[in-house]
Amino acid sequence: MAKVFGHKKPDTDSICSSIAFGYLLSEINNQEFQVCRLGEINEETKYILGETGFEAPELIDTVNQGEDVYLIDHNEFSQSVNNIENANIKMVVDHHRVANFHTNNPLEMRLKPVGCSSTILFELFKENNIEIRADIAKLMISAIISDTLLFKSPTTTDKDIQAVEQLKDIAGVEVEKYGLEFLKAGTNLADKSAQELLEIDSKEFTSNDLRFEVAQINTVDIDELLAKEENNLKREMENKIADKQLSLFIVMITDIINSNSLVIALGEKTAHFEQNFGKTLVNNKVLLDGVVSRKKQIVPNL
Amino acid sequence: MAKVFGHKKPDTDSICSSIAFGYLLSEINNQEFQVCRLGEINEETKYILGETGFEAPELIDTVNQGEDVYLIDHNEFSQSVNNIENANIKMVVDHHRVANFHTNNPLEMRLKPVGCSSTILFELFKENNIEIRADIAKLMISAIISDTLLFKSPTTTDKDIQAVEQLKDIAGVEVEKYGLEFLKAGTNLADKSAQELLEIDSKEFTSNDLRFEVAQINTVDIDELLAKEENNLKREMENKIADKQLSLFIVMITDIINSNSLVIALGEKTAHFEQNFGKTLVNNKVLLDGVVSRKKQIVPNL
Repeated sequence: MAKVFGHKKPDTDSICSSIAFGYLLSEINNQEFQVCRLGEINEETKYILGETGFEAPELIDTVNQGEDVYLIDHNEFSQSVNNIENANIKMVVDHHRVANFHTNNPLEMRLKPVGCSSTILFELFKENNIEIRADIAKLMISAIISDTLLFKSPTTTDKDIQAVEQLKDIAGVEVEKYGLEFLKAGTNLADKSAQELLEIDSKEFTSNDLRFEVAQINTVDIDELLAKEENNLKREMENKIADKQLSLFIVMITDIINSNSLVIALGEKTAHFEQNFGKTLVNNKVLLDGVVSRKKQIVPNL
Repeated sequence: MAKVFGHKKPDTDSICSSIAFGYLLSEINNQEFQVCRLGEINEETKYILGETGFEAPELIDTVNQGEDVYLIDHNEFSQSVNNIENANIKMVVDHHRVANFHTNNPLEMRLKPVGCSSTILFELFKENNIEIRADIAKLMISAIISDTLLFKSPTTTDKDIQAVEQLKDIAGVEVEKYGLEFLKAGTNLADKSAQELLEIDSKEFTSNDLRFEVAQINTVDIDELLAKEENNLKREMENKIADKQLSLFIVMITDIINSNSLVIALGEKTAHFEQNFGKTLVNNKVLLDGVVSRKKQIVPNL
């Protein structure tokens, strides 16, 4: 059975859009697809799965040589399943830059610079005349709201807003109320160790000779999190830098209410960060006003 | 003005689909796009441009830093315009494997494993409710017939056939008759030097440590071409191997009537070719029955 999955350290988009994509593919092809995940479900996504009644997809860490796979919400091999370079990639649905990605054969790719993978799925559902079930619509709304932080992220496009506009009638959801509920559920960090905080939503990138990782932690109180975890976070970041031989590790602690991010940067290339952002790090920290998007406001500058 | 172009050493798909893509983009966005080409127009495409009344697109060899570009019929940087890695790639429409390609920013990609770029354009015209003019329809038919060798290539899909089925009514074209006319026009090789023959339709690839090039020459008489040009072709191939430091150079001389290809292989990695195809080269030559597609029947095996 062909496998469908999002990226490592899955966020709400990767999990919810994988389920919706698997459903779409099974309806189009009239056969089953196995929806998988590449890591632990975060608090936000747990809340959403509870609200929509879906089970967590099956956890996998590798795929077989020549196995048919469908990627969503990522394309970079460094963010994908182990052995991805030997799988048979049939299709990619994504809204990120393309890098560290190649295939031996022609494939289907549907990429658009929109806020969320589910916005592209919404178009595919319509093109293929597949009816969107209410529970699938709610999953897709959740993905779009999560990725765009209730349309506040600069990654938001008209297409994301229009998709939610149509999906909310199918799902019967009060978008603003439901969105704030699960976003807040996702900031429940009380039980998390620093190591776990860094695992919530972290992505590794390679660009020229720079090997870097950017983790993002959503919160409603940056100061409280810093007071409690700053030293622990920095220690864990140093460990990861050594383990993975990174030249830069960035953590964005994002205030989802006020749309700012406190950045902690460590590694031998912190000067590269300061130069490219025109900011000075104090104790390896700097507050970036209006910055909430790793994809649009952090990665392209590095 | 944003630029639209196909690959280096352009074939009919790259030229005709570029013009159709430029027209589609200008209709969607209500602004002009500059259709360009990255090399000389071949005999087949010249015939088609004459039949459809279009001028050859403007020849360019480089693009500026940060310039907006739209790629069609290719994605690999080695097949694209100089300085492509510093351009701002807005969109790719293609039907090839993805390799040697990366961007800094999210973009639109519309790739499908179909026989021709114009088959994908046909879907985009319909999705965007843009009327296809008769002359544009004829260009798109030409591209599809050329790339699929009148539907005989194994790259042909139902979608290609269906697109032509609908386009032929718009264009008012007798597909079989018109197709044979321009395919034969394309095999008019009388005036060409060996160097020019290799330039007609040649693509360079990089895969692991293998740097190779595959040229294709369509003909209606393999033996006649070999008798006249075999030694000259081999000498030119050796020159290119030295110039570009290739480890393998393959020329497919394709009989478009009988759907076979005589392959000439030179370079230090000819044993790699023999091994992967299970064939023995005699005087660096072998006839491959039923092989007409570089993309589907040659490149994946290397």
